[in-house]
Amino acid sequence: MSTKSILIVGSMAFDDLEFPVPVASASGEPRTVFEDVIGGSATYASLSASAFAPVRVVAVVGRDFPEPMLEAMRARKICTDGIERADGLSFRWRGRYHEDLVGRTSLDTQLNVFQDFRPRLPDAYTSSPLVLLGNIHPALQLEVLEQLSRGSSGGPELCVADTMNFWITGEDALLAKLLRRIDLLIINDEEARLLSGIHNLARAAKDILARGPKRLVIKRGEHGSLYFDDDGVFAAPALLLDHVVDPTGAGDSFAGGVLGFLAEHGRYDHGSMRRALVHGTATASFCVEAVGTGGIQQLARADVKTRVERIRTLLHVGDE
Amino acid sequence: MSTKSILIVGSMAFDDLEFPVPVASASGEPRTVFEDVIGGSATYASLSASAFAPVRVVAVVGRDFPEPMLEAMRARKICTDGIERADGLSFRWRGRYHEDLVGRTSLDTQLNVFQDFRPRLPDAYTSSPLVLLGNIHPALQLEVLEQLSRGSSGGPELCVADTMNFWITGEDALLAKLLRRIDLLIINDEEARLLSGIHNLARAAKDILARGPKRLVIKRGEHGSLYFDDDGVFAAPALLLDHVVDPTGAGDSFAGGVLGFLAEHGRYDHGSMRRALVHGTATASFCVEAVGTGGIQQLARADVKTRVERIRTLLHVGDE
Repeated sequence: MSTKSILIVGSMAFDDLEFPVPVASASGEPRTVFEDVIGGSATYASLSASAFAPVRVVAVVGRDFPEPMLEAMRARKICTDGIERADGLSFRWRGRYHEDLVGRTSLDTQLNVFQDFRPRLPDAYTSSPLVLLGNIHPALQLEVLEQLSRGSSGGPELCVADTMNFWITGEDALLAKLLRRIDLLIINDEEARLLSGIHNLARAAKDILARGPKRLVIKRGEHGSLYFDDDGVFAAPALLLDHVVDPTGAGDSFAGGVLGFLAEHGRYDHGSMRRALVHGTATASFCVEAVGTGGIQQLARADVKTRVERIRTLLHVGDE
Repeated sequence: MSTKSILIVGSMAFDDLEFPVPVASASGEPRTVFEDVIGGSATYASLSASAFAPVRVVAVVGRDFPEPMLEAMRARKICTDGIERADGLSFRWRGRYHEDLVGRTSLDTQLNVFQDFRPRLPDAYTSSPLVLLGNIHPALQLEVLEQLSRGSSGGPELCVADTMNFWITGEDALLAKLLRRIDLLIINDEEARLLSGIHNLARAAKDILARGPKRLVIKRGEHGSLYFDDDGVFAAPALLLDHVVDPTGAGDSFAGGVLGFLAEHGRYDHGSMRRALVHGTATASFCVEAVGTGGIQQLARADVKTRVERIRTLLHVGDE
């Protein structure tokens, strides 16, 4: 069984990050502010997924985005042909993490070249069997689906999307249309509650599944994630890490790991989805241990395997 | 293998509860305020544990505490000989639950007869193999341990204690002494962070285990619970319930279920503790589905078994 390839559409950006406690920098000196950290949903997801499978990225960067990062991606078999370099500055986000490293305050968002981004898929991408639509405007996510439907395979085998509060409240009609066309939605607990209007997660999940996607993942940060489909519910615990440094990109790394496992595995049934969540969790655990993409830039499949075993131990009950 | 008996020391009380949404009352009419609800840590824990094993309770009630409740406990093989009826009013707590049914505000606490409570164990209780020291003043918890050490068996096989923020900050020396004398501490995540002074739960757990108890459970409410000992970590997910009505007593019901399983099972090794947490989780899930003790007052062992199977399904990963 050959590993399938994954198309990832999303943002590539610079993040300026402020942490509550000093973190060792590249020079060895601890500091709390890290600027010009390379980030973005497509960056995190593609670096993570590439530990499992060939990846293609559709995104836009500005003239300030460093070429060596794109080279590093290509070295991991990530095809960067779909990354457009526009004449302007890259998307930039500045955020301050709270004391608990869970809450965070957005201090500044500069869309820059991302403002006019219209995803354009190279012809070779339109037959991608697995697709991850990162958190961008649902109109753009739908445009990607349109381009995929015109591909030689008539559309992907598995289409996965992320979204956020901003689109749930501001673009509900377009989001409703998107939900009817995707196979798996990955959102966090707050977003699930906002989207469904239901606080209870069991009922919120039922409501969301009735809106289109046959599969749903609800992320709960340090508390792990939940998977729902018609065959049942799975609760994946997060790994208990001794040192969490930077949660930026953890959700995107999780999605990258989920799609990576599925691309490698080739099946999307209930049991496979359970194992995909465990692999996504293991992948994300590397992301949070370093600033920016430092924890996943060299991530190997064998590294993920080791942590998958730790998660299996974490949730093993044994017979009575 | 015969089931062992459990000694439970704690509070028996009246709770006045205010909920964010109306709940069906005994008369069928929905309302948000329920007064004179029978509660207390020993009440919840003993009703829960009695689904598994014989239970003995040491507590104090006032002249206002209804005799039919004590009769109902005796009907479940709970020995009430250790429950002292004092001349005064029972302990009373009034609380208002927030919209999410997680946060709550204490509106009023009347210690009443609980103020002068000094636990006195009937002679027959002093050889109890399993002991749950509910959340009371650590000086009183230590007094119980003193009485147990003079019992014919020279002390319990497994001593479990709960505590709270109030004692962690106000009685740290006594609490430190208690921690050196118990086998299992059950606290929530906030308490673990306060006790250790460490936010990261993996490191907080290591710190607490170094203070005495060989086993630690950290409760995380709707996110489940974690178990730590020298042999590893277990993450028990909470059940995803369609309807959560009243979280009061969930932690005590969890502890009751944990001790109940261990009393029935007779062993306290790492694997047994994992299964005990799953049984505690299943037990607590019945507690939160009704106001007060309504969900556990008739709880049968077979009911718990059914939900244990649901939890096993919730965390089953399967082979690759």
